[in-house]
Amino acid sequence: MSSTHSHPHVEDHFESTEMVRDVVIGMSDGLTVPFALAAGLSGAVSSTHLVVLAGLAEIAAGSIAMGLGGYLAARGDAEHYASERVREEREIVERPRDEEQEIYEIFEQYSVARTESEPVLSALKRNPTAWVDFMMRFELGLEEPHRNRASRSALTIAVSYVVGGIVPLLPYMLVQESSEALKLSVVITLAALLVFGGIKGQLTGTGWLKSATQTVLIGGVAAGAAYGLAKLLGRSGI
Amino acid sequence: MSSTHSHPHVEDHFESTEMVRDVVIGMSDGLTVPFALAAGLSGAVSSTHLVVLAGLAEIAAGSIAMGLGGYLAARGDAEHYASERVREEREIVERPRDEEQEIYEIFEQYSVARTESEPVLSALKRNPTAWVDFMMRFELGLEEPHRNRASRSALTIAVSYVVGGIVPLLPYMLVQESSEALKLSVVITLAALLVFGGIKGQLTGTGWLKSATQTVLIGGVAAGAAYGLAKLLGRSGI
Repeated sequence: MSSTHSHPHVEDHFESTEMVRDVVIGMSDGLTVPFALAAGLSGAVSSTHLVVLAGLAEIAAGSIAMGLGGYLAARGDAEHYASERVREEREIVERPRDEEQEIYEIFEQYSVARTESEPVLSALKRNPTAWVDFMMRFELGLEEPHRNRASRSALTIAVSYVVGGIVPLLPYMLVQESSEALKLSVVITLAALLVFGGIKGQLTGTGWLKSATQTVLIGGVAAGAAYGLAKLLGRSGI
Repeated sequence: MSSTHSHPHVEDHFESTEMVRDVVIGMSDGLTVPFALAAGLSGAVSSTHLVVLAGLAEIAAGSIAMGLGGYLAARGDAEHYASERVREEREIVERPRDEEQEIYEIFEQYSVARTESEPVLSALKRNPTAWVDFMMRFELGLEEPHRNRASRSALTIAVSYVVGGIVPLLPYMLVQESSEALKLSVVITLAALLVFGGIKGQLTGTGWLKSATQTVLIGGVAAGAAYGLAKLLGRSGI
């Protein structure tokens, strides 16, 4: 890819951005869902053993489902890019007039007249690879996905989910009484969500305070709903 | 936005694509994680009551966490777009030479010489809104997010998660014995994953057979791992 090779810094930047995004995806859900599930169950059963069992089963299921889901999504993006690229490569050979027309239309959206975009078109026609690169980016809005993106993404999401998920379960592993463990779990998980949300906000540019507040709120609402539901169902004996 | 207003069909297409993506996100995890959790627990406890309780708590936690997560992600995209747009609007006024330079550089990536991109630059300079639109799309690669995208996205993801999650739990609600319920849950969930994966493959262009196979495989692996882990922990009495 000529266009990305000439921009190593840009590419590094995108790679680390993708990594941050994957850690955020995995850890947000990892810190929230097992926490909420454990809180919910501790409202209905007194044995921490069962809470830990359900929590670990959820972490196994969630990390695998999200990791493999991320893998397939990234693989799908790569395949979509490759097949669209082959189509564009064929079209500039088989239907060059249509493709020229498309370039004029892209520029017309920005009030650039045909006479003004014509020199760009001539330049692209001299260089078929650049022409295809241009169509991929400016007609279709597609960026070439990174090599190994899929497996790296899967692993990052899964590991982040496991790391995030273990935090709220720790108290249930260490404390016998589930209502005691719940209190401890609430404290350390809200603290972890606060720190994680703050770092996330710093990295994504949302601002640390706003992001920390939002992250804690999501975890709290999800856990509260799960706790309330389990308490209700546990009491009604369903 | 002049560029989107002139393309109603394109916008409709993107909106339905986003909707499909949100349904896929919610339903993939909804069908997989509660299924895997219930399978895992049924390997360790004999009471279906507890499996249903944990499953419903997981659905409540998962749908809220994923829905609100989707809401924040979409809101974050919209805020990022708006703040970058304000920055570009300021820069074409305060640092027009730098912005001109950036346009030349964008075209140079596609082997278009300065003399050839110059007419495009002149056209953009006549029309500041189009110039900003152009920089947003071609320098930054950002598309304007749709209005109400965030709340629509949150609702679609959450509802899809609940709908997907109820399917594997139904047998545990109807059958008393958890090992019997497990068998039934495996059958109807794999069937649901097969149908869902097939439709997903048709809509996203991956091909129905390939997508159906992948979706069933993810659900199976996640459930198998959760089942194995819970069985192991249940037996060792941790």
